[in-house]
Amino acid sequence: MSNAITSRETDYSQWYNDLIIRGGLADYSAVRGCMVIKPYGYALWENMRDVLDRMFKDTGHQNAYFPLFVPKSLFEAEEKNAEGFAKECAVVTHYRLKNDPSKPGKLMVDPEAKLEEELVVRPTSEAIIWNTYKDWIQSYRDLPILVNQWANVVRWEMRTRLFLRTAEFLWQEGHTAHATAEEAVVETKQMLDVYAQFAEEYMAVPVIKGVKTPAERFAGAVDTYCIEALMQDGKALQAGTSHFLGQNFAKAFEVKYLTRENKQEYVWATSWGVSTRLIGGLVMAHSDDQGLVLPPRIAPLQVVIVPIYKGPEGKTEMAPHADKLIAELKAAGIRVKYDDSDNQRAGWKFAEYELKGVPVRITLGARDLANGVVEVARRDTKEKSTLPLEGLTQHIQNLLVEIQANMFNRAKAFRDGHITKVDSWEEFERTLDTKTGFVSAHWDGTAETETAIKEKTKATIRCIPLDNEQEEGVCVLTGKPSTQRVLFARAY
Amino acid sequence: MSNAITSRETDYSQWYNDLIIRGGLADYSAVRGCMVIKPYGYALWENMRDVLDRMFKDTGHQNAYFPLFVPKSLFEAEEKNAEGFAKECAVVTHYRLKNDPSKPGKLMVDPEAKLEEELVVRPTSEAIIWNTYKDWIQSYRDLPILVNQWANVVRWEMRTRLFLRTAEFLWQEGHTAHATAEEAVVETKQMLDVYAQFAEEYMAVPVIKGVKTPAERFAGAVDTYCIEALMQDGKALQAGTSHFLGQNFAKAFEVKYLTRENKQEYVWATSWGVSTRLIGGLVMAHSDDQGLVLPPRIAPLQVVIVPIYKGPEGKTEMAPHADKLIAELKAAGIRVKYDDSDNQRAGWKFAEYELKGVPVRITLGARDLANGVVEVARRDTKEKSTLPLEGLTQHIQNLLVEIQANMFNRAKAFRDGHITKVDSWEEFERTLDTKTGFVSAHWDGTAETETAIKEKTKATIRCIPLDNEQEEGVCVLTGKPSTQRVLFARAY
Repeated sequence: MSNAITSRETDYSQWYNDLIIRGGLADYSAVRGCMVIKPYGYALWENMRDVLDRMFKDTGHQNAYFPLFVPKSLFEAEEKNAEGFAKECAVVTHYRLKNDPSKPGKLMVDPEAKLEEELVVRPTSEAIIWNTYKDWIQSYRDLPILVNQWANVVRWEMRTRLFLRTAEFLWQEGHTAHATAEEAVVETKQMLDVYAQFAEEYMAVPVIKGVKTPAERFAGAVDTYCIEALMQDGKALQAGTSHFLGQNFAKAFEVKYLTRENKQEYVWATSWGVSTRLIGGLVMAHSDDQGLVLPPRIAPLQVVIVPIYKGPEGKTEMAPHADKLIAELKAAGIRVKYDDSDNQRAGWKFAEYELKGVPVRITLGARDLANGVVEVARRDTKEKSTLPLEGLTQHIQNLLVEIQANMFNRAKAFRDGHITKVDSWEEFERTLDTKTGFVSAHWDGTAETETAIKEKTKATIRCIPLDNEQEEGVCVLTGKPSTQRVLFARAY
Repeated sequence: MSNAITSRETDYSQWYNDLIIRGGLADYSAVRGCMVIKPYGYALWENMRDVLDRMFKDTGHQNAYFPLFVPKSLFEAEEKNAEGFAKECAVVTHYRLKNDPSKPGKLMVDPEAKLEEELVVRPTSEAIIWNTYKDWIQSYRDLPILVNQWANVVRWEMRTRLFLRTAEFLWQEGHTAHATAEEAVVETKQMLDVYAQFAEEYMAVPVIKGVKTPAERFAGAVDTYCIEALMQDGKALQAGTSHFLGQNFAKAFEVKYLTRENKQEYVWATSWGVSTRLIGGLVMAHSDDQGLVLPPRIAPLQVVIVPIYKGPEGKTEMAPHADKLIAELKAAGIRVKYDDSDNQRAGWKFAEYELKGVPVRITLGARDLANGVVEVARRDTKEKSTLPLEGLTQHIQNLLVEIQANMFNRAKAFRDGHITKVDSWEEFERTLDTKTGFVSAHWDGTAETETAIKEKTKATIRCIPLDNEQEEGVCVLTGKPSTQRVLFARAY
């Protein structure tokens, strides 16, 4: 191809952008920091959303929808949350435009249509939702509330990247209310498990479950749990978070309930979310210099069939074979496309579907068909094999399962090979600069040391793993005593 | 019930609000004109969305997602569209809040974070989408583009009503691009047919397909097609629109394509949308003084089972019968809930599920079960019958089909009985004030007469029906010659 994508080696960041744009997932827009999610990218998001939605419903949650806008007085009610998001929020101040008298054909904000109270475009919905829950909750009988919302949110980030960090993004945010702290913590951890299961079983991305340090917590949370993934350039990506919010929002919005013992108590809360950012992580975890590599379980297309023929007659002769095969694959629930368009040659198509990361390509050739065989190419390993048409559907089904497993195992081997235990500062810095990945090291537990390490190396504490072993040691930076290792990494 | 809902007779508008709020569909929010869609209402919307989404995909459309914000310079590019929406749009002017130095704990807009260009929160997305299509379209090979978006939009309406007219609402907006006017018109009409089919077959709401007069057209459209429904109070509701946009947006955004003949030509456009407003129409078309009446095909719950028993022992004895029945109904794809909660008595539950419009209620009683029968009550006619457990699932399946058909036929009989042909002005006014509904009358075709009639009677021309017969006549107001009748009504 004349217009090859940038290799990872040459420029990882440009490689990523090339894949997103030329793979047809998304594109820049006319709005600073906002992207257009193109049909192929949106189909991927729909598949991810549908699986997650099913998992949420299976764990007892229902969807609802709350307003896009948060009045300033509600936005500022939970102080830490407000402080965390005030710096980067879009604010609606007016509700009308009018003709600009000085510029014919142009509009201007109508100064007479100024809102009495400014509206913040939601960066997250705890405030508007807890203000609503106040009306929904009177007694223990109204609890728990297990609600999720699929929505768009806006955070005015200064440096944006397609999918990974955009001013507007799509996400889901669960917001639950409970009678006890214990029940809320169980919910928080349950949803973390749901996220980890989704990442590993559907996205084929291995994740480490952990808890954030106070400095890295969600603004307004008592505890933030997270799943952390590793990208091919050795940087970490926070792929999902689940927050135990304690009674912070209940207190800010005066949400109390009558207990079985007839007492008024504040309600306990959780919130949890994943976003279109996951798509960025998916791309960075699996793709190669030829393009996207998508895991079969969520790929918009699982199989593409490319016929090779000469002239209209050849095409006509091929059609019944193709029709039969497509019908069989579809009957088996496989998402398949037949590309017999005459606009492009087969070689161009091969490259295009490789770029788009379609897990399996079947090539139909006249001579092969005469022999009752087809060529099957898998995207993950680039292996090709010639297989009989007889029983092909079953073979493809197995192959999709195998590809899914292989992608996960490959990503896990890479991730496991990039967790390095270090015990000295020299080793810490060297590891970050050479091998990259997660660095497992002792830390003295203070915010000062965490900040000092971040300033020196740009590495942050990604999490304290949930299954961490207790181990005596000394902080790599200060030499002070420590009881466990934590995971550091540079991160997206 | 002590807290009965307002009857239609007493106050139709209050009856509607009672149903929406107490039926658990939606509630007011802290944001002026915006509502909270509660889980039961959102589940209804999900069912509607899923059916529509399937219909869109079956007609070759793909989903995508475009930015929430429209920069002012794009917003104003298509002059008529801008003019139509400028008066009622939310405008983002700043991207940061800061601590208010004069009020501790309060925030204020940071004057240093003023945007260079204001951003309009999309009231509709033609502008941002056609600015994007400019990059997607070079030649005839790139056409047609058949894209749909599920999104939230904001129109700063001064008088709002739950679902029917809210400042923020959820909708889908299809935006297609074509090489020829003919193809775009075919698309416009196809999507109108999809909407009509959805309204009639799923919502059980009969609709009239028609075209709007120039005065009632979408801002920026060449032709606006619509489906019009009739509510029980005799007012019309525009339930969906499909617009042929001509080359207006292509010209505003300079979207040209290279034809097969190597010429540069402007692209032809359509857009089409339905919104959460449909839920308001659904409620008003079918419900009664006891509550919602929901059509089985989209009802969140199709069947509720209420057991009647004495004490914990009675409940335990009932459980296996219930489990078996639930398993059978679920296996048949029926959405069923078993309510054996001890918080409320059976009578309360009967009223509650009646209020919520669940199509079928099955009552399990110990004596009935001993006789191998249950009581089945249908919501639409309030008929009750005692039926054998043997073969009950098949009976329920048939009953759901029957209820769906009955609801449509009843609404259609009402609608057909409220279309009145009138031939004089005296008759026109009297019909609107007494019988209400659609008034079929001759109109001289001028905007002046249309406005005069609207000012005198508040009735607007809902549409010129697509299947209209040509008929000589004279305008009811001016006596000028006319060739066809049009449909007038007061409307939501």
